Amino acid sequence: MCELFAMSASRPTDVNQSLALLQPRGGEIGPHADGWGVAFYEGRAARIFKEPVPAAESRCLAFITEYDFRSTNVIAHIRKANPEKIGRASANTHPFERELDGRSWVFAHNGKLPGVSTAPPLSSGRFQPLGDTDSEHAFCLLLNRIAESGPGLSAGELLTTITPLISDLASLGEFNFMLSDGEHLIAHAHTHLHKLRRNCCGGDAAQEIVLFATKPLTDEPWQPLEPGSVHVFAEGKEVHPNGSIPASHAA
Amino acid sequence: MCELFAMSASRPTDVNQSLALLQPRGGEIGPHADGWGVAFYEGRAARIFKEPVPAAESRCLAFITEYDFRSTNVIAHIRKANPEKIGRASANTHPFERELDGRSWVFAHNGKLPGVSTAPPLSSGRFQPLGDTDSEHAFCLLLNRIAESGPGLSAGELLTTITPLISDLASLGEFNFMLSDGEHLIAHAHTHLHKLRRNCCGGDAAQEIVLFATKPLTDEPWQPLEPGSVHVFAEGKEVHPNGSIPASHAA
Repeated sequence: MCELFAMSASRPTDVNQSLALLQPRGGEIGPHADGWGVAFYEGRAARIFKEPVPAAESRCLAFITEYDFRSTNVIAHIRKANPEKIGRASANTHPFERELDGRSWVFAHNGKLPGVSTAPPLSSGRFQPLGDTDSEHAFCLLLNRIAESGPGLSAGELLTTITPLISDLASLGEFNFMLSDGEHLIAHAHTHLHKLRRNCCGGDAAQEIVLFATKPLTDEPWQPLEPGSVHVFAEGKEVHPNGSIPASHAA
Repeated sequence: MCELFAMSASRPTDVNQSLALLQPRGGEIGPHADGWGVAFYEGRAARIFKEPVPAAESRCLAFITEYDFRSTNVIAHIRKANPEKIGRASANTHPFERELDGRSWVFAHNGKLPGVSTAPPLSSGRFQPLGDTDSEHAFCLLLNRIAESGPGLSAGELLTTITPLISDLASLGEFNFMLSDGEHLIAHAHTHLHKLRRNCCGGDAAQEIVLFATKPLTDEPWQPLEPGSVHVFAEGKEVHPNGSIPASHAA
């Protein structure tokens, strides 16, 4: 098992507080000691930092939590290797990233997908795993499906494209994940994933933020997402199934 | 213009000394102040760190030069934006990376390729740029050509595949580069690229190291590579055109 964290915001902001709360769960007060990673989007491209070492002991992550990385789209993960034979290695550390149609796609997973490497087949797909995890294998399957559907999918088309595959994969085990192309942040709550809305900071341009975590990071009123549900967020708000961002939010 | 550094070695080693010598050229004693990046291979996958800030001022790079990153294959780059309108951004910072056939491919470039974005066309290719540089565009062209040739190319087949395209691209301007798939390290010396061999450390398994730099980093006898030449290295030694690693080196 692992822990996931993600953020979508209407204006760039840091996630230093959240990362600082996540960090000790990676080997100090939590068992997720086999790696950590965080992706900060900068437009279409993601900046990714990851290490196959305990988050709690990482000087590099400690450094990041104090650095001024600001983004509207962040995905972070702390890893507990499972099964344990899939060991510590950068290639086995989330989040995973691939370029498709000139965008970085980033993925992180909580759960287990036994048997994913044998069905459905991956051999003919464009995207292949660099490491040995079930998670990266599932990510490649999702991206291969998206690539086959051609470029420029709306949020609604994207959901239509991947929802059947998400159901197939979830049936293998446990499949909570966050996926992003830098514009959309897609959340699949299979067994447990929580959401927290923060509207803060007032001023000329109100900031809207939505945070996600498998396990709430604070005492605020995190809402569990309905098991089995898939959601698309952009600019800190949920995108309607028809692909539009709610009018109150579109600037 | 920019500066390139790379290493191929028979056993994992750090490049802390070389990075520490490169760092001040990024904005302190040299003008390459628009970004820095370094890729360390770990098997088939690369760990990449990069920032669109002066290397000389980067706490992150200072941190890396003191960290214990060991690899048999490293590519590093410090960037001076050119033309200046292609500004500082992670997506414009070398080295660039893409997954192809389950391997990280990593690329860094010294020089300029005016007009590369209009010819040859990229629109039909699998790999598309995330940023705005001529360098990443050329990398995508190279990878699209390699992808079209199918998986599992030998070093010789790889050279046969990309050499005509390298010539076409070099004719647009200046095209010194380092490219790797984690197994091979490919050097193209268009106008200036230097090589330094270090055989060190004795013991049971002798360590063979070859370093590359556009501008020598030390007073050692760096050899200029012949302008217009393409070379493939693996495990610290040049690979014969037929793809074999010299017998004295194959362990």
